[in-house]
Amino acid sequence: MRQVFHQSLHDVQVGLAEIADLVTIAIDKATRAFANSDVALAEEVIADDVHIDERAVALDELAIEILARQQPVARDLRIVVSALRMSASLERMGDMAEHIAQLARYRFPERAVPKGLKSTFARMAALDVEIARKLAELLRTQDVSLAEEIRNDDDAVDELHVSVFEKVLGESWKGEATATVDATLASRYHERFADHAVSVAKKIIYLATGDWAPDDEPVEL
Amino acid sequence: MRQVFHQSLHDVQVGLAEIADLVTIAIDKATRAFANSDVALAEEVIADDVHIDERAVALDELAIEILARQQPVARDLRIVVSALRMSASLERMGDMAEHIAQLARYRFPERAVPKGLKSTFARMAALDVEIARKLAELLRTQDVSLAEEIRNDDDAVDELHVSVFEKVLGESWKGEATATVDATLASRYHERFADHAVSVAKKIIYLATGDWAPDDEPVEL
Repeated sequence: MRQVFHQSLHDVQVGLAEIADLVTIAIDKATRAFANSDVALAEEVIADDVHIDERAVALDELAIEILARQQPVARDLRIVVSALRMSASLERMGDMAEHIAQLARYRFPERAVPKGLKSTFARMAALDVEIARKLAELLRTQDVSLAEEIRNDDDAVDELHVSVFEKVLGESWKGEATATVDATLASRYHERFADHAVSVAKKIIYLATGDWAPDDEPVEL
Repeated sequence: MRQVFHQSLHDVQVGLAEIADLVTIAIDKATRAFANSDVALAEEVIADDVHIDERAVALDELAIEILARQQPVARDLRIVVSALRMSASLERMGDMAEHIAQLARYRFPERAVPKGLKSTFARMAALDVEIARKLAELLRTQDVSLAEEIRNDDDAVDELHVSVFEKVLGESWKGEATATVDATLASRYHERFADHAVSVAKKIIYLATGDWAPDDEPVEL
């Protein structure tokens, strides 16, 4: 039974890492679509989000089956419950990538990235892609140092998020309402993407070390 | 054992309804703080969010204890898993109320509600408060007609959300960047609040009727 449980847990872990791979592809494409007003690439991300959703539902079914058949208790039970929460966070990361792609599509053929914020969004994008890549690796290796890196990357994303608002609300901002709306939404999507990754990383630390961290959502603007 | 399980399930149901009561108070205060630039009321909402978070964590612990002790299977198991998801959604509804309160606080002593959108936000606020109140009642009574009402109210919120963007992106919009940012964020928070309520309502329908609806997130701007 114990061995069956460990095999099941391994399947869950592999499933989560595979969803993280799809999320990495989604955020990479979405941020490129956003930067380059590439509507075809944006459409791809929007169409592919359903696959992330399906994988998340399938993983939840697997976790529920493990609960039903193997009736884990104590730490094992918490691990399976954590998996349900991780799949929900990964699914939301996919949604954030989709939202970024939608912004690119809405503004086409105009640029979605507001003037004066190109380098800021390029840095946020690079960080989000890096965070997703590290998250997939963390799910595969349980290397807790990656969780620390993700947390640091998220701090950097938060700083960029604040800087977007400073820019948009500053004296020198000449953007029209469209640019202001796009900057506001895009920045929030990039920031929420990273937040969800931190939430998953915390749960993997629990899987690896037994340190249970209750959900805590960072304060957002 | 069956009786113990039903008592436990009743405790979960009562716990969820109590969190929904706190969320109703939070969104009512937050939207009033936002409408009237009432910073003291905003501070209350921000300070009280921790209680919603604590209640959600406690409810999760109760659900995990039920899984561990009573090892439910089949439909019973899905009900307990649904409860974990419902508490997460209610907790996020509390966060949305907190975010609306934060907008009121940031802009104080200025008005947070942008000119020309006062009546729109008043209607969104009234709908969100009504949705939260109905959700608490639905959790207590399992009256599925309330779920239908919540869905209709959410459609009305979605329409108002779209109308905010039409206004802000329209020719006649004279708002400064601050007003544009506030309208964008506030509208999204109101809309997400209602979305989470619909997500909870769907799960209650499952509890009441056995119709299992997988999570589906509505498309958002």
